[in-house]
Amino acid sequence: MNIEERIDDLQNGYKIIQNRNGFCFGIDSVLLADFSKEIKNNSKVIDLGTGTGILPILLCAKTNAKKIVGIEIQEEVAEMARRSVLLNLLQDRIEIKNEDINNLDKIYNHKEFDYVITNPPYKKIGTGEKSNQKKELISRHEIKANFEDFVKATKYLLKDNGTMFCIHRPERITEIITTLKKYKLEPKEMKFVYPKKGKNANLVLIKSIKNAKEFLIVKEPLYVYDENMKYTKEILKIYENS
Amino acid sequence: MNIEERIDDLQNGYKIIQNRNGFCFGIDSVLLADFSKEIKNNSKVIDLGTGTGILPILLCAKTNAKKIVGIEIQEEVAEMARRSVLLNLLQDRIEIKNEDINNLDKIYNHKEFDYVITNPPYKKIGTGEKSNQKKELISRHEIKANFEDFVKATKYLLKDNGTMFCIHRPERITEIITTLKKYKLEPKEMKFVYPKKGKNANLVLIKSIKNAKEFLIVKEPLYVYDENMKYTKEILKIYENS
Repeated sequence: MNIEERIDDLQNGYKIIQNRNGFCFGIDSVLLADFSKEIKNNSKVIDLGTGTGILPILLCAKTNAKKIVGIEIQEEVAEMARRSVLLNLLQDRIEIKNEDINNLDKIYNHKEFDYVITNPPYKKIGTGEKSNQKKELISRHEIKANFEDFVKATKYLLKDNGTMFCIHRPERITEIITTLKKYKLEPKEMKFVYPKKGKNANLVLIKSIKNAKEFLIVKEPLYVYDENMKYTKEILKIYENS
Repeated sequence: MNIEERIDDLQNGYKIIQNRNGFCFGIDSVLLADFSKEIKNNSKVIDLGTGTGILPILLCAKTNAKKIVGIEIQEEVAEMARRSVLLNLLQDRIEIKNEDINNLDKIYNHKEFDYVITNPPYKKIGTGEKSNQKKELISRHEIKANFEDFVKATKYLLKDNGTMFCIHRPERITEIITTLKKYKLEPKEMKFVYPKKGKNANLVLIKSIKNAKEFLIVKEPLYVYDENMKYTKEILKIYENS
């Protein structure tokens, strides 16, 4: 264990190793795992850009997916995620691969997965890369891969009628929708997340289905904080069930 | 005055003539007028598919637009709208044209308007045309023009950096966004309307700007009814200020 690392208890029977100077998981991972909880028993799932491995670990608690692959481009981060998997004795369900999402067609069969899940970097290159930490930069900015790369990989990996779950910034919705449609991933459900009343949305959860017909459901909005800056009931429930 | 007609008081100093068997204006017109209230003084506005003329009349109360043109394809409906304009003595500010939105390039100059506003038919042909009333059918279904026709006309009519305000169904968002982008109308603001807590959105307000950069703001959601099925404070405020 590296001196920069710490172990956090996920309160669901599992733990996660995180780097104090790297990208630590946030509420977006928790919301995305909750949004994806319909994942069916015995299915094959792949998480593109898994980072610490937080999503595969949360999904092991929330679903009966048979196999969850986490792809991470940064070798050190992938290695740390692998140690979290071992720490939780989840090595039979989770496999961490240190790989570039642009290479997955060389490793996996076309249409090999039932679900793709991804919490990709939110920011374009050139939009305020303020962190001095290279690991955090790669997690937050589209340095190694942009949104289209994530969608292209998803199209390759997903079965027909397979489902992609993703979380992103509302400011990029028009680009997100046109890119998803370009690769025949039809957005079927969106849920906007608002920090609190009176504020604009700052996250959006999107469920897309490969080759589906156009028809979008915009689900009830989710508020994170109430007027007293405490977590709302909805958020507490999501944390309790994670 | 036709026996099928009635006059309703808009509670803002104006009245509207509506046909009992036709399309009577609903909350969507009120929400769209409110969403468009930033329209600047002395500007030129065009309403595509004006129906009873409700939007131009509401905008006369809410804004200092200099000139508002309402385009209506149904002769009888346009004629009724014209009578509402006269009833309110608004003939210097509002002009109703009985015209097909697909013909506007023959009547108006390219880039003649500062704002386009539209509450287009929500439904595609073949999706439950249940009304026996032809007038209502044309108002609700894309019989005479589809969404792309509305956007194409908007692109022609709007100045560079001009603004389009529109209301539609969330279920069609992916098509709406790809169509707007195809015609260089960039969605800059969206506001989702929910009938009440626990329900999916059933309306979306969209502000687009011609030739603008990608960057969308998703505004605070709007609930129409509270738990007791009474209008929420926000809705009452919009009605009071209309």
